[in-house]
Amino acid sequence: MNSDGPKSVIGVDLGGTTIKAGVVSAGGSILYQNKFPTLADRGPAVVVQQIATAIRDAIKQAGRTGTEGIGIGAPGVVDDEGVVKAPPNFADWDVVPLKLEISKLFRGTLIGVENDANAAAIAESKFGAGVDHPNFLFVIWGTGVGGGIILDRKIFRGPTGGAGEIGHISIDYKGPQCNCGNVGCVEAFVGQRYLSQRSAQKLQNHPESRILQLVGGDFSKIEPVYISQAAHEGDSVAREMLIEAGELLGVGLASVMNIMDLRVSIIGGGISAAGDFVMQAVQESVIRHVLKPLRNEIRVLPAKLGNNAGLLGAAGLVM
Amino acid sequence: MNSDGPKSVIGVDLGGTTIKAGVVSAGGSILYQNKFPTLADRGPAVVVQQIATAIRDAIKQAGRTGTEGIGIGAPGVVDDEGVVKAPPNFADWDVVPLKLEISKLFRGTLIGVENDANAAAIAESKFGAGVDHPNFLFVIWGTGVGGGIILDRKIFRGPTGGAGEIGHISIDYKGPQCNCGNVGCVEAFVGQRYLSQRSAQKLQNHPESRILQLVGGDFSKIEPVYISQAAHEGDSVAREMLIEAGELLGVGLASVMNIMDLRVSIIGGGISAAGDFVMQAVQESVIRHVLKPLRNEIRVLPAKLGNNAGLLGAAGLVM
Repeated sequence: MNSDGPKSVIGVDLGGTTIKAGVVSAGGSILYQNKFPTLADRGPAVVVQQIATAIRDAIKQAGRTGTEGIGIGAPGVVDDEGVVKAPPNFADWDVVPLKLEISKLFRGTLIGVENDANAAAIAESKFGAGVDHPNFLFVIWGTGVGGGIILDRKIFRGPTGGAGEIGHISIDYKGPQCNCGNVGCVEAFVGQRYLSQRSAQKLQNHPESRILQLVGGDFSKIEPVYISQAAHEGDSVAREMLIEAGELLGVGLASVMNIMDLRVSIIGGGISAAGDFVMQAVQESVIRHVLKPLRNEIRVLPAKLGNNAGLLGAAGLVM
Repeated sequence: MNSDGPKSVIGVDLGGTTIKAGVVSAGGSILYQNKFPTLADRGPAVVVQQIATAIRDAIKQAGRTGTEGIGIGAPGVVDDEGVVKAPPNFADWDVVPLKLEISKLFRGTLIGVENDANAAAIAESKFGAGVDHPNFLFVIWGTGVGGGIILDRKIFRGPTGGAGEIGHISIDYKGPQCNCGNVGCVEAFVGQRYLSQRSAQKLQNHPESRILQLVGGDFSKIEPVYISQAAHEGDSVAREMLIEAGELLGVGLASVMNIMDLRVSIIGGGISAAGDFVMQAVQESVIRHVLKPLRNEIRVLPAKLGNNAGLLGAAGLVM
């Protein structure tokens, strides 16, 4: 890692469960990557410290090449000043000036903060599955469900930077309560909490499921990433769960396609690694639910940059 | 009407039930207006003839001032070539090159065709309730539910001109079938068909309702515009119906606010005349269903140009 080449930047992907920080080269390669727990249930001060710890570790690894800047992708609404507002699943976090807080801890370093899904959408548009699609909806499907909208190869941030919150489209006005206050949100149906609960229910009758092996028999440790992995390995309960969830996600995506006149969805996040059958379930559902003129052109594609999109897009903010 | 002043243009508002054509002055005044049945159930050829009849009548009234052009606001997706695709509630209408068809009948005249809701949104932005709001969602709530999105005072058409179809957001993935093929659409809950059916049900026990007086006791003639009028006159069944519908519309609008980072909705169409209580029901519902950072700024306003917005916006296309 020690070289006299061009300086690299630090990209940070702030998730509801883990923080990943990485050293990214000017060419878009990840030279080093770490992972720390977010501790989102302990409030903003603790989360900021965890972010700082992850950044310091990455800077140390960047070594003599130095750091040009730090880019952070964060959940929730991020305004033009890098203020992060009400990220779902983060306790006691109303409005936090994250850019300012991190600037205080790393004085003299360029800091960029963007919504995590927007950051990942930019990365997919430039380097990933969106290269051939000037207009698409990017979806992060993991702990929560986030989105970023690419129009004419640029991010659509909306009037105040909050656009793309597709996880909080209600697909059932009588549906389950979501953390955001709304009911029947896409996220309330296909996000971590619901998927984990549904899995735990189903697994009562399927002790042989690979999901249970992956979490060491501990129901409380079930996360979409394990369901995804089990499905990838052929587990039938996991596949069934994800197909069901994919169909519900498709209902919400169809609404976005209708509203914004889009045809292409690119799906990243923990679930996207499960396999083509999930993408197919989502795509079939979108086709069933969009307006006729859009149907023939609907495509649902897996993200190409995988879990690295958030980190690469974050780094891209300060390149 | 006969004068040597600047030429006026013809604006046409093509609705699912009626066609309105008007003579509009350069200053945006409606000098003459007619109304013909759309006959949407008889297929595109008949509808095109009805449009032509309405235009010819208006041209005749425009008299010696002449006609600079004909602008048409049409439901469904309208592309850059004036092709109208799959307007809901129109029988046998898949893809019809309406601009071309009308051009053949009125050779040498400038013709413009735009989605009706987009046309009305432009009119509200320039002359109506949107003058003070650079970003808003315009909703037409009548036979169907359509929308137009104004961003930075310009219409957002989307990549191919189809943006703003907010009537076909599903708010219930197990909900009633919509004409568009989707289930649980906003339009399937608050559009003419559903509202009329719900009213007919409710009115079995309310023979005294003003709605029944307005339709001469004929249940088959119940339309949102009469429900709206009855509510305006204080009829309790009508008010209850519209509050319920307003709450459901609000669920869908909240999703649009979340996705596109908007705060303001402006509602036109037959229902918007019912009174402030409907706007209030919609607004309270939107506030309950949007993400927290948006809540304080949510506004639901009645359109100012009333039923004339479509016609004025259509005329504006060729001004």
